[in-house]
Amino acid sequence: MKILKGNITKVKGIKALGKYIGIKPKNKDFAVIFSEKLANVAAVYTKNKVKGAPLYVTQEHLKTGKAQAIVVNSGIANVCTGKRGIDDAKLMCKLVSKELGVKENDVLVASTGMIGTYLPMDKIKKGVKGIKKELGKKSHVAKAILTTDKMKKEVVVKVGDVTIGAIAKGSGMIHPNMATMLGFICTDAEFTAGKLKQMLVKAVNKSFNMISVDMDTSTSDMVVLMANGIKGKVNEKAFQKALDFICVELAKKIAVDGEGATKLIECTVKNSATEEDAKKIAKSVITSNLVKCMFFGKDPNWGRIMCAIGYAGVEIKPENIDILINGIAIVSKGHGLKNKKKKIKKTMNKKQSTITIELHQGKAEATAYGCDLTTEYVKLNAHYTT
Amino acid sequence: MKILKGNITKVKGIKALGKYIGIKPKNKDFAVIFSEKLANVAAVYTKNKVKGAPLYVTQEHLKTGKAQAIVVNSGIANVCTGKRGIDDAKLMCKLVSKELGVKENDVLVASTGMIGTYLPMDKIKKGVKGIKKELGKKSHVAKAILTTDKMKKEVVVKVGDVTIGAIAKGSGMIHPNMATMLGFICTDAEFTAGKLKQMLVKAVNKSFNMISVDMDTSTSDMVVLMANGIKGKVNEKAFQKALDFICVELAKKIAVDGEGATKLIECTVKNSATEEDAKKIAKSVITSNLVKCMFFGKDPNWGRIMCAIGYAGVEIKPENIDILINGIAIVSKGHGLKNKKKKIKKTMNKKQSTITIELHQGKAEATAYGCDLTTEYVKLNAHYTT
Repeated sequence: MKILKGNITKVKGIKALGKYIGIKPKNKDFAVIFSEKLANVAAVYTKNKVKGAPLYVTQEHLKTGKAQAIVVNSGIANVCTGKRGIDDAKLMCKLVSKELGVKENDVLVASTGMIGTYLPMDKIKKGVKGIKKELGKKSHVAKAILTTDKMKKEVVVKVGDVTIGAIAKGSGMIHPNMATMLGFICTDAEFTAGKLKQMLVKAVNKSFNMISVDMDTSTSDMVVLMANGIKGKVNEKAFQKALDFICVELAKKIAVDGEGATKLIECTVKNSATEEDAKKIAKSVITSNLVKCMFFGKDPNWGRIMCAIGYAGVEIKPENIDILINGIAIVSKGHGLKNKKKKIKKTMNKKQSTITIELHQGKAEATAYGCDLTTEYVKLNAHYTT
Repeated sequence: MKILKGNITKVKGIKALGKYIGIKPKNKDFAVIFSEKLANVAAVYTKNKVKGAPLYVTQEHLKTGKAQAIVVNSGIANVCTGKRGIDDAKLMCKLVSKELGVKENDVLVASTGMIGTYLPMDKIKKGVKGIKKELGKKSHVAKAILTTDKMKKEVVVKVGDVTIGAIAKGSGMIHPNMATMLGFICTDAEFTAGKLKQMLVKAVNKSFNMISVDMDTSTSDMVVLMANGIKGKVNEKAFQKALDFICVELAKKIAVDGEGATKLIECTVKNSATEEDAKKIAKSVITSNLVKCMFFGKDPNWGRIMCAIGYAGVEIKPENIDILINGIAIVSKGHGLKNKKKKIKKTMNKKQSTITIELHQGKAEATAYGCDLTTEYVKLNAHYTT
C-alpha cells in the first residue's frame, strides 16, 4: 500500500466537483461525485431513530447495490422535514440524473447542516445546471461537504493496481448532534456490493465508530463505498487493510478537527477479555468531558481516567490496571506513581496524546480517537445560531 | 408536609459539626453527624466498578442495618489507595467511635475530593479529638462536605410529628468523575432498616439518579438514610412523599450548582410507553452537551433536542413528537413551528428552564435535571490541579 498525494479523482473513472450555490452564507456548499461506469456500492448509516430524509432516499436507491453518482449539500441537513424533505431529496437525485444522463435510481444523496429547515430547491435547481461540464479532476469536493470543520479531510492510497480515494467531513464533538459525519470512498477495484458491505462494516467498526463522534448519534451520518471495477480485481486482504487505513486516517482527522479542539487523543485498551470490553472502555475514557478537559489543561489527572474505566460497564479489577500517558507509566497495579506528573505534563503540549490502559485480563485490544474539550467548543456551540 | 427553616439538626436526637482540619488548602473539610440513639440505617452506593475505600468500610459496617455516627471528609476521596486506604477509612471510624463512646462498627465513613491520594491521618487524628464537645445544633456540617460546590445544600421538612433533615454535596457535571455526590438524610421517625432501604431506593431513582450527575459514575457516591425512631411511627405514604420531595430538592440543588452552570434545566418526557423509556430519553436530552450549550447561548435550537431523543435507544415515532421549551410549543408532530423562536429566546434568560417532550405513545412520564454547559465549566476542569 502506498499513500498518494492528490484527491478522490485519482481513482480511475471518478470525477467530482465542489462549488458555492448559496445554501450557506459563504463557502462551497454543493458537491457531486461521478463514476464514468455504473459502480457496485455499499453504505452504512446512522443508528439514530431520527434520520434525515436523504438517508431514506439513498437507502431506497441502493437496494440495487449499484450507483453512479453522489450529490451532497452542506448548510442544511434536511432532517425533521417530513414528506416535503423526502420529495426534496428525491428531486435532488432527479435533477442530477437528468444533467448527467444516468438513472435517477443510480444517484445517491446526502445533506449536512441545520436540522428542521427545508432545502432551498430553487438554488439547488440552478446549481445543478451545467454540472456535467464542471465535473473534473481538480475538484473542490472535499471542501464543499464541510460545515463546522476547520480543514478538509482526504486520503488516497494505491494497493497493487487499484486506487482508493476518500473524503470525509465531521467534527470530533462529544455528541455530534449537528456535526454529521459523512464519508465517501471511491475505488476502481472490482468487488460485489455484498463484499463491499462486509469490508466497509469491518473498517467502519474500527475507525468512525471509535471516535467520540460515532454512527449512533447524528441524524445524517453516512459512509458510502463505491467500486466501479475499471481496474479489475485485487487481493481482498490487501484491499481490506488499505480500507481500514483510510477509515482510521479519516477518523483521526475528524477527531482532531473537533470543534474548538487543540489536540488528538488516542486511547488504547490492551489485554482485555474481549474486544467488546476494550471498545467500551476506550470509548468511555475518550468521551469523558473531564478527561478531555484535562488534556486541554495539560494535567495528568489519572483519577479521571480510572473513574471513566470504572463506569464503562465492564467487569474490571482496578488493582490490576496500568495506565500510561504518552508512553509514560502513571498508574501501576491501580496505584498512582509518584514523581511522574512533571515528566508527563511536558509531553502534553504536543498536538497528539495517547492513553494506554493495560487490563491484564486477556488478549483483546481496541483504540478510540477523540479530542480535548476547550472553552472554544462551548463558545462555538452556545452561539451556533438557528 | 411542611418545609422548615434550619438544618439537619432540627431532627430530634441529631447533632452535627463541620470544621476545618487542614485537608483542603482552606474551607471546612471535616464533618460528623451523630444520633443520640442507635439508628436503623439504609444506604445506596455508586455503581462504578472503581469504588472508594470508605464505601467498602461503610458497606461492611452497615451489615447490621444500624449506625450511630457518620464521619465525612472533603478534599481527598480516598480512592485507588489500596489496602492502606481501607485501613485509613477504618481508622477514621475507630477514632470517631472512641471519641463519641459508640461501637466502631456503628460509625459510617465517606470521603470526597481527589482520587489517588492518601488521607493525612495525622491531621484527621488531631481533628477528631474533642468532637464530642463540638457536636451541636448550629452545625456547619452542610458546608464541610463540599468540594467544587458553590453553595450548601440542605432541606428540612416536617411530616406529622416527625422531622426529616438532609444535606447533600455534588455539582451538576456531565460525567461527575471527580464531583462525588453525597447525601445524608436523618429522621426521628421509626422504620426498620429494610423499609428504609426500600423507600430510599424509590426516592433516589426519581431524584439523584435523574440528574446528569448520577449514581453510575463517580467512585464515591453514597446516600445514607438514618432513622433513630425517637419520635415514633408515621404514615408510610406521607413519609415516602416527603422523602421523594427532599431527594428531588437536593437533586435540583446539585444540578443547578453545576460547575460553571448558570441555570437549572428540567426535562420532562410525557406519554411514553414505559417509565424506563421516558427516563432514557429525559436523561439523553439533559446530558447532551449541545443541548446544554444551547441553554447557555439562549438559542432554542430544537434540532439538538430531537437528535438526543433519537439516540436515546428508545423506539420512537419522530412524526408524533411535540416539544415545548419553557411551556411554549416549538415542535408539533415532528415539525418545527415558525415564529416561536423569538418568544422562547426571551424566556431563556431565567435561572430555570424546562423542556417538555410529548411522545404520544403511552401514559408513562419521567423528569431529569441538569444544567447548561459553559466556558466556565471547561476552565474549572482544565485547571483543577492534581
